[in-house]
Amino acid sequence: MRLKAIVSYDGEKYNGYQRQPGTKTIQGTIEQVLSEIGKEPIIIYSSGRTDKGVHAVNQVFHFDTKLDIPLDGWKRGLNSLLPSDIHIKDISEVSSDFHARYSVKKKEYRYYIRTGEISPFYDHFSHYCYGLDVEVMKKAITLFIGTHDFDGFSGNTLEKNTIRTIYEAEIKQDGDTIEIRFLGNGFLKYMVRTLVGTLIDIGFHKKDIAIINQVFETKNRNLAGKTIEAKGLFLYKVYYE
Amino acid sequence: MRLKAIVSYDGEKYNGYQRQPGTKTIQGTIEQVLSEIGKEPIIIYSSGRTDKGVHAVNQVFHFDTKLDIPLDGWKRGLNSLLPSDIHIKDISEVSSDFHARYSVKKKEYRYYIRTGEISPFYDHFSHYCYGLDVEVMKKAITLFIGTHDFDGFSGNTLEKNTIRTIYEAEIKQDGDTIEIRFLGNGFLKYMVRTLVGTLIDIGFHKKDIAIINQVFETKNRNLAGKTIEAKGLFLYKVYYE
Repeated sequence: MRLKAIVSYDGEKYNGYQRQPGTKTIQGTIEQVLSEIGKEPIIIYSSGRTDKGVHAVNQVFHFDTKLDIPLDGWKRGLNSLLPSDIHIKDISEVSSDFHARYSVKKKEYRYYIRTGEISPFYDHFSHYCYGLDVEVMKKAITLFIGTHDFDGFSGNTLEKNTIRTIYEAEIKQDGDTIEIRFLGNGFLKYMVRTLVGTLIDIGFHKKDIAIINQVFETKNRNLAGKTIEAKGLFLYKVYYE
Repeated sequence: MRLKAIVSYDGEKYNGYQRQPGTKTIQGTIEQVLSEIGKEPIIIYSSGRTDKGVHAVNQVFHFDTKLDIPLDGWKRGLNSLLPSDIHIKDISEVSSDFHARYSVKKKEYRYYIRTGEISPFYDHFSHYCYGLDVEVMKKAITLFIGTHDFDGFSGNTLEKNTIRTIYEAEIKQDGDTIEIRFLGNGFLKYMVRTLVGTLIDIGFHKKDIAIINQVFETKNRNLAGKTIEAKGLFLYKVYYE
């Protein structure tokens, strides 16, 4: 039986998503609890890793089990054993050809920037800066929409294919909170944080909006903005068929 | 020169507000940074302590200094040295007869309850429960308004005078968030958390609304609800003349 889980986590206290011996990670923590319930080692397959400090509102993973536990029992059992910064929102049965990573159709990321007076209560979950020209950022972000080679906007990725499609990209401002949203068919390593870093440079008028097409053309990482800090980034949703 | 400061803090990682040798507290952390700037020991006087795990949106303290630093310089200097979970929002000069504790006229506390699906992102800042009858809680909370002996709703307080006046008390629900607000001339130890604990028992129909007046009459702490956990509590505002 293959089970699909939707999980939300606060990445602050974890050394990233991916299992690593000797260090606390999201995947490692979930697998440990699952294996405790299953009384045998259980491996999970997720939609993709998230970097150290990145959060998830709806990350997805699947695992296989022969145990005869009702779905609600899995959910309650996992949540009672998991720490409070990881929460299983849903468990459902899926067919054996579902794969949390290979079946992904679209992913949505959101990045939060706070402006105005600093608040300790938003500190874990946002990047702080002030004085941004949000209107020019709103124009700039539309240039990311479409199919482009995002090589110049990624960290030293090992992917051979660096072409991705962004379906939707928009910026909303609500009081002191700026939300930057990307919906795409996939994202390279550090890609969202580099897109946001570039938008911030444009918002501070340190870079012109034309830099975006220059990075697409030259694939020159040094022309793009810096990789902005992880703590404002949320894997918001993973879309399947 | 006497300076008044407004400070916001996330109490999660501190062993309470009040200075204690050998342990990290809010007051101790602020005094250490102030003394570093002032190059001499500086003591702060606040509107009152907050318990371990309690947060503040606008706590107030004052301190005296002979240093000739502009107000904005104090604010920037303090914030650059303080950890990101303590933030000075404002520094202003006050007359020498202002005292952050003795000049208090009113205090406002807010307590947050989350219902619905558990979210790791609200975990530090709220109490989670579900199934509350919020309408009966809204009726019950009005019974706290007025001047009463709150002895039965406090922890083992050392205060001789346990009579306090609550000017405003109300409950607002916004989606999965319930906000409980109290404005009063002062609050006893654990008082807000015991009032909220009692309201929660009433919301779960474990106690009848009539219990409130019975606690006022008998001053019997055992009749009231339990002292609810600290992490949902915020010192929201301190009012002076």
